[in-house]
Amino acid sequence: MAVYGKILVAIDLTEEAPQVLEKAKAIRESSGAEVILVHVVEPVGYAYGGDIPMDLTELQEQLDKAAKAQLQSYGTQYGVPEANLIVTVGRPESEIHRLCEELSVNLVIVGSHGRKGFQLLLGSTANGVLHGAICDVLAVRIR
Amino acid sequence: MAVYGKILVAIDLTEEAPQVLEKAKAIRESSGAEVILVHVVEPVGYAYGGDIPMDLTELQEQLDKAAKAQLQSYGTQYGVPEANLIVTVGRPESEIHRLCEELSVNLVIVGSHGRKGFQLLLGSTANGVLHGAICDVLAVRIR
Repeated sequence: MAVYGKILVAIDLTEEAPQVLEKAKAIRESSGAEVILVHVVEPVGYAYGGDIPMDLTELQEQLDKAAKAQLQSYGTQYGVPEANLIVTVGRPESEIHRLCEELSVNLVIVGSHGRKGFQLLLGSTANGVLHGAICDVLAVRIR
Repeated sequence: MAVYGKILVAIDLTEEAPQVLEKAKAIRESSGAEVILVHVVEPVGYAYGGDIPMDLTELQEQLDKAAKAQLQSYGTQYGVPEANLIVTVGRPESEIHRLCEELSVNLVIVGSHGRKGFQLLLGSTANGVLHGAICDVLAVRIR
């Protein structure tokens, strides 16, 4: 796909990430595109509400650190240089859109479950990325 | 993108179709993939309710005919053989999903406006295709 010069691959850190990475690797190998790997850590405040006042800084730091280590391991495995590994904190869709603009990305690759109904209403990441994206989006079907 | 051997390109017949076709052409040229072009005509009954009893058969036939002519013209322009041009009637998402299965397609290419809000709730074609797709989906950003 020499059509795209710069590809942003957005992964979660579940056991599904390698499926997206394998596809991205195949596309890079057939095209010579530059690949940037990104994982967006959601702020822990999103998950742990605001009901009980507590300091979440340490938990957030631990999550960030674990994400960085995991991303680095994927980077080594899939031949993505360290300078192209990004861990950022925020809403996945917004962060991915921001990075696309800032880094002049031509294509975003994300995983997609192809789920319907509730998942559609709640909004999957693939769906969120698709809407509002300034570049093309490739949704890799997770099996 | 030698990653994908068989690509289904789903287009509407608006002035936006060439943007999707150009991208599909570039991908085919860099990969040698087989390209199938499809346009789904929505049944006129969907648009013209059921309030007034009238025979819509002729209108439907005219729409189908116009769609076939337009698709054929795109086929000539973008080098897609006639055997790979499909006009079908139904809901775009369902028809595209059905064709993917029946034709063992690896990748669907659709146009996407990247719109948010209402368009998301109402469901764009790109969104509908993404959810429930059995293969990868490339959403080409319409400009």
